[in-house]
Amino acid sequence: MRENKLLSLLNQMTLDEKIAQLMQLATPFFKGAKEQGQITGPMAEMGVTEEVVQNSGSVLGASGANEIINIQRTHLEENRLGIPLLFMSDIVHGFKTIFPVPLAIGCSWDLKLTEKSAEIAAKEASVSGVHVTFAPMVDLVRDPRWGRVMESTGEDPFLNSEFARAFVRGFQGQDLTTEVERVAACVKHFAAYGAPEGGRDYNTVDMSERELRENYLPAYQAALEEGCEMVMTAFNTVFGIPATGNKRLMRDLLRKEMGFDGVLISDWGAVKEMIPHGVAENEKEAAYKAITAGVDIEMMTTAYVNHLKELVEEKMVNESIIDEAVLRILQLKEKLGLFENPYRGANVEREAEVVMSAEHRNAARELAAKSSVLLKNEQILPIHKEQKVALIGPFAESGDILGPWSWLGSKDEAVTVKEGILRKTTDLSVAKGCDIETITDSQVEEAMKAAEDADVIVLALGEDSEMSGEAGCRANIQLPSAQLQLIQHLKSLDKPMVAVLFNGRPLDLHGVLDQTDAVLEAWYPGTEGGNAVADLLYGDMNPSGRLTMSFPYHVGQVPVYYNHFNTGRPQGAPDAQERYVSQYLDIPNDPLLPFGFGLSYTTFTYSGMTLSRETMSDTQSVDVSIQVTNDGSVAGEEVVQLYIRDHSGEVIRPVKELKAFKKISLKPGETTNVTFTISEEQLRYHHSDLQYTSDPGTFTVFIGRNSKEVTEKTFTLTK
Amino acid sequence: MRENKLLSLLNQMTLDEKIAQLMQLATPFFKGAKEQGQITGPMAEMGVTEEVVQNSGSVLGASGANEIINIQRTHLEENRLGIPLLFMSDIVHGFKTIFPVPLAIGCSWDLKLTEKSAEIAAKEASVSGVHVTFAPMVDLVRDPRWGRVMESTGEDPFLNSEFARAFVRGFQGQDLTTEVERVAACVKHFAAYGAPEGGRDYNTVDMSERELRENYLPAYQAALEEGCEMVMTAFNTVFGIPATGNKRLMRDLLRKEMGFDGVLISDWGAVKEMIPHGVAENEKEAAYKAITAGVDIEMMTTAYVNHLKELVEEKMVNESIIDEAVLRILQLKEKLGLFENPYRGANVEREAEVVMSAEHRNAARELAAKSSVLLKNEQILPIHKEQKVALIGPFAESGDILGPWSWLGSKDEAVTVKEGILRKTTDLSVAKGCDIETITDSQVEEAMKAAEDADVIVLALGEDSEMSGEAGCRANIQLPSAQLQLIQHLKSLDKPMVAVLFNGRPLDLHGVLDQTDAVLEAWYPGTEGGNAVADLLYGDMNPSGRLTMSFPYHVGQVPVYYNHFNTGRPQGAPDAQERYVSQYLDIPNDPLLPFGFGLSYTTFTYSGMTLSRETMSDTQSVDVSIQVTNDGSVAGEEVVQLYIRDHSGEVIRPVKELKAFKKISLKPGETTNVTFTISEEQLRYHHSDLQYTSDPGTFTVFIGRNSKEVTEKTFTLTK
Repeated sequence: MRENKLLSLLNQMTLDEKIAQLMQLATPFFKGAKEQGQITGPMAEMGVTEEVVQNSGSVLGASGANEIINIQRTHLEENRLGIPLLFMSDIVHGFKTIFPVPLAIGCSWDLKLTEKSAEIAAKEASVSGVHVTFAPMVDLVRDPRWGRVMESTGEDPFLNSEFARAFVRGFQGQDLTTEVERVAACVKHFAAYGAPEGGRDYNTVDMSERELRENYLPAYQAALEEGCEMVMTAFNTVFGIPATGNKRLMRDLLRKEMGFDGVLISDWGAVKEMIPHGVAENEKEAAYKAITAGVDIEMMTTAYVNHLKELVEEKMVNESIIDEAVLRILQLKEKLGLFENPYRGANVEREAEVVMSAEHRNAARELAAKSSVLLKNEQILPIHKEQKVALIGPFAESGDILGPWSWLGSKDEAVTVKEGILRKTTDLSVAKGCDIETITDSQVEEAMKAAEDADVIVLALGEDSEMSGEAGCRANIQLPSAQLQLIQHLKSLDKPMVAVLFNGRPLDLHGVLDQTDAVLEAWYPGTEGGNAVADLLYGDMNPSGRLTMSFPYHVGQVPVYYNHFNTGRPQGAPDAQERYVSQYLDIPNDPLLPFGFGLSYTTFTYSGMTLSRETMSDTQSVDVSIQVTNDGSVAGEEVVQLYIRDHSGEVIRPVKELKAFKKISLKPGETTNVTFTISEEQLRYHHSDLQYTSDPGTFTVFIGRNSKEVTEKTFTLTK
Repeated sequence: MRENKLLSLLNQMTLDEKIAQLMQLATPFFKGAKEQGQITGPMAEMGVTEEVVQNSGSVLGASGANEIINIQRTHLEENRLGIPLLFMSDIVHGFKTIFPVPLAIGCSWDLKLTEKSAEIAAKEASVSGVHVTFAPMVDLVRDPRWGRVMESTGEDPFLNSEFARAFVRGFQGQDLTTEVERVAACVKHFAAYGAPEGGRDYNTVDMSERELRENYLPAYQAALEEGCEMVMTAFNTVFGIPATGNKRLMRDLLRKEMGFDGVLISDWGAVKEMIPHGVAENEKEAAYKAITAGVDIEMMTTAYVNHLKELVEEKMVNESIIDEAVLRILQLKEKLGLFENPYRGANVEREAEVVMSAEHRNAARELAAKSSVLLKNEQILPIHKEQKVALIGPFAESGDILGPWSWLGSKDEAVTVKEGILRKTTDLSVAKGCDIETITDSQVEEAMKAAEDADVIVLALGEDSEMSGEAGCRANIQLPSAQLQLIQHLKSLDKPMVAVLFNGRPLDLHGVLDQTDAVLEAWYPGTEGGNAVADLLYGDMNPSGRLTMSFPYHVGQVPVYYNHFNTGRPQGAPDAQERYVSQYLDIPNDPLLPFGFGLSYTTFTYSGMTLSRETMSDTQSVDVSIQVTNDGSVAGEEVVQLYIRDHSGEVIRPVKELKAFKKISLKPGETTNVTFTISEEQLRYHHSDLQYTSDPGTFTVFIGRNSKEVTEKTFTLTK
C-alpha cells in the first residue's frame, strides 16, 4: 500500500478509531489470546472498552505463532477497516535462545557476532509472530548501582554507537518489507535514562545540554542513522521535564534536529507517570503533554483513549497532530508488509524448526565465551582435564544465568556450570557452599569436604538476576557477604581458586580479586552459559572479552569512568602538591579495573607505533600503525584500542576518548600490523554554543590493550 | 577620594602598573613582612619582579597589626603613585577566636548569633590589619564525600541564602568606610563549587542551567544583595568551562544579570589551572580567558603580569578592560578608606585588647553549643554532676576541634572536652582508647579500665581535621573502623554510653547511632568546644541544633537530600508495584537522619495548624499558624520549619522546599502560636525557559520539627 492509500485509509478513520490506534495494550486484552478475558476487571478500571481494544493499534508482549495468528485473525474480523495489529515485545538479548546480557555483549567488542545475535533473536521472534522488539537499549551508563547497566553496552559513547548500529542491523536486516524473519527495532530510552541520580532507577536526570549531546545522544543517533524504525521514551526527566512529555526533547531535538520520523512510543505507563512526576495534574494534562511532545503510542495507560477526543473537541489539540501519529503507525505497518500479510513471519512450522536450534545455541555459546572477561589469572587457568575440580558456589548448578530481560528464556534449558564442566571432565565434586545472601555452617562443611581432594577450586559466585535489571538497584556493590565468607573459608585450604562471576553490574571486587588466583567475569552468559564457561576454563576458547564499564574501587568512588576530565589539579601532575589535588584521601582515583581491561591465555606485545604524518587537516588524515605480536603459546584474540586526547579545547575535553578499535586474532608467535586512520571528523566535539566542530591544536593518540596501558604519539590538527 | 579622582589616578598609571595592580601575592613576597626574602627563589621562578611586587594591588594571607602596618608603610614608600595595598585573608569561621565550622553554624539556624560571629571575626581581623575576608563560602552541598561541605551551611538554597546574608552583614556592617573594625566580604566560590562529581574536590561540575539557577545561585545572589564587595571564582567548570575563564558565567550572568560590579578574584592559582583543565594551551591564553571573563585579581599565578601587556600590544585585549579591573580595585580601596587611612583598623593596642577577648570566647561558646545537634538520647543526657564519668576516645584531650580553615586558631588554646567536663565535675577518668585510625590492645585495656567504675561513658570520637576541608575527600564516610571497634569493646561493659562526635561532614553513623545510648554531633566546635560540649552534656545548655545536611544511610546512597524530586514511580505511592519503584533493593531511600533533624532535652508538641485562607493570589498572601508547646520540664529552643510543595509545575518540583523557619524559646509548659506568611514570591521557580515565576495550582504547606515530621495543609494559588 502506498502513501496515498494510507492517507485514504486515515481519512476513513473516525477520531475514536484514530485515538485507539495510538493505544498499546498487553496481550491478555485481546480476543484470541490464551489469557484473554482474565483482564476484564482491570480493563473496566482503566476505562478500556471493547471498542478501544478492537481499534487499538498494537499489542505488547505477545509471542508464539499460534497465539499471535489467532489474535490477528480475530482482530481483523472485528476491526471495521481491517487494520492489522502490530505485535511488539521485549526481545533484548535473545528470544528463547538467550545470549549474554548486553553489558556482556559489549565486552565482546565483536560487532559481527553481536549483529548475528540480534539476527537470531529477530528470527526466533518473527517466526513466533513478533514484529517489533523494544531494543536496543543504548543508554550510556556510568553508575553500577543502577540495576539496568546490564542492559547497556557500557560507558563509552563511541562503542555504544557501534553496538547500537550492530543491533539495529541484526534486528532489521536490509529490508523489513521483504525479510519477514526480521523485526523492527525500537531504540531506547530517549534520552539519558542511564544517568539517574544516585544510581536509583527512575530517578531524576540532570545534566547540561552539552553533556547530553556529547555523551548521551550519539548512540541513539547511531541507531537512527542505521534506520531504526522506532524510539521509546525514557522514564526520567530531561531538563526538568519527563521525557514522555518533553516537547523540546522530542519535537525539537529528536524529530526536527535528529530527523526521526518513525513511531515514538512511551515506556510502560510513562504517560500517566507525568502525574507523580508533578508536571501534569491529571490524565488529561498528561495526554496533552505527551501528544504535544509527539509521542505516537501510549503504552499501558489510557490518557489518550480517555482524553484525546475531549482535547480535540476543546481545540486544545489539533486533530492533525493525531493524524500524524496515526499515519506514522500505519506507515510502519505498511513497511512491515502487514496490510498484505498481517501474519508476517508467524509460522508454526518455522517456529518449531528455528527456535532454540543447534545453530542458535552454538552462536549463543560463542558469544558467551567472547563476552566473558578474564580479570585475573595467576597461572591457574586453563584447567587441565586431568585436574580434579571442586565446583562450589550458589551458581554451581544454577540456571539463573540468563540475566534480566530474558523473558522467554527458560532457566531449565540453560546449561549450568556443572553441566558445562561435566562435558570436559567427570572428576568433579560439587557443593553449593552458600546461598546468594546467606551461609550456614553445614553449607560450609559440605563445601570444605567437596574441596578436600580437589586440585583446583572453581567458585561460581554472583548476584541472582533479581539483584540487577530494571529497578534492581543496590547501594552496596560488593558480592553479598555470605559469598565473601565462603571464599575466606575455602582460602584456608590453600588450594588454587578460580572465581567465575555471574552478575549484571560492575562490582567492587575487593574480597574476590585479592583472595583468589583467577577471576573470570562471565556476567549473565545466557542459555549456553555453562558450556561457554567450561570452554574458557578448559582452554577450548581463549578469553578475549574486555570491560566496557569501569569496575570501581569502592562504591564511594562512583561515578568512575575512563573518559573523565583532567580537572585543574590533576593527581600525578609534575607540579602537584601533596594535598591540594583532586583525589580521595582513602582510595585511589582509578577504578579497580579500567575500561578496556581483560586478560588472555596468551600475551600480546605492542611495538613500533608510527604516525604517517605529524600534522593533519580537514582534508588530510593521519594513519597510525602499531605492531602487535602474540608472544604466548596459544592462539588468541586481542582488542587493539585507539584513544585520542585533545589537549586544549574551547570546553574541557576528556583525558582519553575511544575513537577506534580492532579485534584481531593471532596465532602463537604471529605479528600483525594494525593501522587506523584518524580523520578530522573524529576530532569534533560539542562547543559551548553546541556546535559540533574540531579545533586546530595538539592531540595525543594512544594505542593499547586497555584504557590505561597504552603507547602514545602526538600530532597536530591545522585549519 | 571620589570617582573622578580615582579615574585621574588610573590615568596616571602605566600599563605595567595597572597590570601589577591585578596581581595578588602572598605575604612573604613583600618588604616589611616577617618572612620577606624567603621567597626570592619562587619569585624568580614565577617571573615576579621586584617592580611587580612594588606595584601589586593586594596581599594574601597577612595578619597581625604590626606586620601589616610595616608592609603597608614600606609599600607606600616604594609605590610611585602611593596606592595602598589591600590585605586579604581567609577568615572563615573566626580569626583567632574560632567559631564552629560553617556547617555547624548552619545547624544553629541562628542568624543573629551567626552575624555576631562574623562581626567578631571581622573585629579581630581588622584590628590585626586585614581588609578583606575570603568568606562566606555559600556553595550548596549534597555530597558528604566532599571534604569541603564543612565550609558550607548545607543543602538548602533558602537557608544558605539566609546565612549568606547574615555572614555578609556581620563581616561588613553598615558602612565599610566608617566602620574600620569590619572587613569586606568575598562570597565564594562562584559558581557551583559544591557539586563536584563523585564528591571529589576540584572535579568536574555539570548540571543544567535551570538547576544551577534554581538551587546553586540563590545564596551567591543573596550575598550580593546584602552588599558583598567581592566574589571569588570556583576551581570547577561550569557548562564545560572553568569558572575562572568563563565569560558567560562571569560577564553575562554574574556581572550583567546579577548586577555585580565589585572585584572578582580568582581562587588560588585558578587562572593558571586553565592549562591542566585543558582550555588554555599556555599562561598567555589563560590570562586572555580570565581577563576576558572579567576576573580582576589573579591570585598567586602570574599569567596577568607576564602576558597581559603583550595581549594589549597585540590588540587581543583592549586596555579598557584592564582599566575596568583596576578601577574596581581602586574603588574597593577607596570604599575601605585606604587612600585616607592606609592602615585602617590595624592597631596594635586594639589587637591586644580585642583578639580572643572573654566576650569573643563567650560568643564562640554559645554558638558552639547552639550548633551541636543531639542525634539520639535514650534518657541518658543530661549527665548529673554526681555521676562518675569515663571520658574515652581520641578527642578526649584533643585540641583538634577547631576544624579546617581555622588558620590562626591555636589548638593549644582550644578548650578540650576533658577541660570542659572538669569544670562540671572532678569525678572523671580519661583514656584515649584508640587513635583516629588505629587501635591497640593496650589502648583498649586502658579504656576498659577507665570505664570500669564509671556510671556513664562519654566517647569523644570523630575525624581529625585533615580528613575534611579542602581536598579532604573520602569515599568511606563511616567513622574509622578503629573507633567503631572501640565502641564495640566498651559496649561489652553494658554501661550507658554517650558519643560526642567531632567531624566535618555528615557520616554514615551505623555502628555509632545503633550502638550507643546518646549521640551529640558537635562538629568542629571551635576554641570553646570543650566548654560548649560540657554545657550540653550537663544540661547547662539545652541542645537546639538541627541538621542542615542529610546524614546518609550508606555512602552508596549519595547524593541524598530532602528537597529531591518525586520521580514517576515514587516509593510508597498507593498504586506502587512491589518492585518497579524508584528505590534501592538493599537500603531505604531515606537518609539515616533527615534535614532539619535534632533533639532537645525537652519535647515540643505541634497542634492546631490553621490557614488564614485556602486560596491566595499575587496580591493576597496566606497566613499559616501552629501552636507549639514545650511539654517537658526544662526550657528549650525549637526550630519551627515551614516547607512547601508545589504539586504540579511546568517542570518537576521538589517534594518539599524550606521556605521559612523560626527559632523559638519556650519555658516548660509554655505554648506559643507561630505564624508564617506565605506570599506568591515564595512560590516562584525557574521554568524551562529560565523565567522565575509562579504558576496557579495546588500547594501543600508543611510545618514541623524537621523535614520528615510535619503537619500539612493545602492551599491554592490563583492568578
